[in-house]
Amino acid sequence: MTSLAATLALTSVFSIGHLPAAEYEPYRSYFEPLPALPPIPADNSLTEDKIELGKMLFFEPRISASGVISCATCHNPALGWADRIPRAVGHQGQVGERNTPTVLNSGFLEAQFWDGREPSLEGQALGPIQAEVEMAMTLDGAIERLAEFDEYQTRFRQAFPDQEDPLTATNVAMTLASFQRTLNTPNSPFDRYLRGDLAAMSESQKRGMAAFVNNGCIACHRGVNLTDSRFHRFELPGSTDEGRFLVTGEEHDRFAFRTPTLRNVAVTYPYFNNGSVDDLGDAVQLMGRQMLGRELDEDSVADLVAFLHALTGEMPRVIFPALP
Amino acid sequence: MTSLAATLALTSVFSIGHLPAAEYEPYRSYFEPLPALPPIPADNSLTEDKIELGKMLFFEPRISASGVISCATCHNPALGWADRIPRAVGHQGQVGERNTPTVLNSGFLEAQFWDGREPSLEGQALGPIQAEVEMAMTLDGAIERLAEFDEYQTRFRQAFPDQEDPLTATNVAMTLASFQRTLNTPNSPFDRYLRGDLAAMSESQKRGMAAFVNNGCIACHRGVNLTDSRFHRFELPGSTDEGRFLVTGEEHDRFAFRTPTLRNVAVTYPYFNNGSVDDLGDAVQLMGRQMLGRELDEDSVADLVAFLHALTGEMPRVIFPALP
Repeated sequence: MTSLAATLALTSVFSIGHLPAAEYEPYRSYFEPLPALPPIPADNSLTEDKIELGKMLFFEPRISASGVISCATCHNPALGWADRIPRAVGHQGQVGERNTPTVLNSGFLEAQFWDGREPSLEGQALGPIQAEVEMAMTLDGAIERLAEFDEYQTRFRQAFPDQEDPLTATNVAMTLASFQRTLNTPNSPFDRYLRGDLAAMSESQKRGMAAFVNNGCIACHRGVNLTDSRFHRFELPGSTDEGRFLVTGEEHDRFAFRTPTLRNVAVTYPYFNNGSVDDLGDAVQLMGRQMLGRELDEDSVADLVAFLHALTGEMPRVIFPALP
Repeated sequence: MTSLAATLALTSVFSIGHLPAAEYEPYRSYFEPLPALPPIPADNSLTEDKIELGKMLFFEPRISASGVISCATCHNPALGWADRIPRAVGHQGQVGERNTPTVLNSGFLEAQFWDGREPSLEGQALGPIQAEVEMAMTLDGAIERLAEFDEYQTRFRQAFPDQEDPLTATNVAMTLASFQRTLNTPNSPFDRYLRGDLAAMSESQKRGMAAFVNNGCIACHRGVNLTDSRFHRFELPGSTDEGRFLVTGEEHDRFAFRTPTLRNVAVTYPYFNNGSVDDLGDAVQLMGRQMLGRELDEDSVADLVAFLHALTGEMPRVIFPALP
């Protein structure tokens, strides 16, 4: 839990209406543009061989029990690398508890999953393969299926040339994480604005940026990915999901969820842990009430929504891999 | 049902072993290279707007009841535009009766589905959307979902500029068919060979081509798509599927199925109506026994398999569409 007090104090300092363009300049300093790549862990260097193999595995449905569900089923490149339905649908049509988070820019997160139970992409990668409501596969089973293909045998050897028996679940995770570190969305209007192209955002978007700072949204949605990667309690109407509490057992984590990224938020609806809110304006208003304790006026909501649209970057252009 | 007698008569004329390259020349005349495009029906002109919209709909999972199954789930571009599992898995993980046929080059077929119940791609397109074991959606429901998106409203108007209310199931079929007519696989080694590049096929592949003619495979697997688009009885071990009989009710159609294309057969395993055969050599041998009444020797099977590998063309390079 992060106290919002410090940032909320900003609100009393500023009182904005229609400012001349130059007046927005100070707000730029609160933000950082998206770097080309997220941090690369020392024990998983980013190589072309790993990225290409990770891409194949990302689209590989045969490592699911049914043979038709891959990472890309829920993290669908056509749908903002998420699924645009309230809660994920997996093995045998089972509906999970939570909304699918986008994998875009996920290399910039310091906590993975809604409950942050894994710190790294490597730790995250094997979860959905095994989850009974997702791909419902054992890791041994997945490795056995991959081992049937000479091409996978070769590609794992190429990606991990120093290892004697590289076709392992750990290396599946390594390659999936490597591929995901390339799924970034640079050059959003917001990034271009931050880099000096002051015409890249509309007036409404700039007002929204100011409102984002002044209302304290930035307390949690901060840093390059507009998330602190930390956990905050949130009473979502209709949700009984105890969130982070299920991981830590600590009372203050009950109903707490990791702050989601706001990058590409306009194309990764619906919102919140159970995907119960479709409309971005409604989501902004709910956040205002729940996290900031205030009723945002209509104009502010409109400006904030406009600003959030400026966070949509260039989608990775992905050509289907040819699987063996 | 087609009599094989005429073509089988060829067998007695030829008796081949290792022929010099020039000796294969006469065999080329039995075949036709793949044209750039299949026939375009007069009532569905092929336009960029229709192709692009059809592509979006092909990848659109929200026209399924679950919201996660699209045409591309079973006709997966990463898997030869099929699914590489024995029988299709659809809504709620239900397993269908039949193996997913590839959509590659399907514009060249004169009968769609294993049982040929639709003659055209337009007729085929709406079947899987509604099938209870596939996408399990009503057409009205699908149209309602699409109508929620301004982008689809606009794109249907652009694709069908003369129509007042173009967002219809008929037009969904028109655009899906248009997109599928672009999914062709030119320049296989076989096509290059037929066009005059005599080095494009190996000696074994050329021997296989000769064996394909001499053994009578070509009786049914003929024409540009190596299928007569007609129906032939076939007793597949373990299959109780009555095939074409379920469409016509005619006794001679019991257990009859449409001849499948052999183009890209090496990348569209497993084989036959229930996908029960994984290995291409086994499939060739089974065909020899069942359709030709002969036990093919090991060398012939190896050559035929080599030839079938020469039928793998260039896959369409498809970038994921961005869906609304």
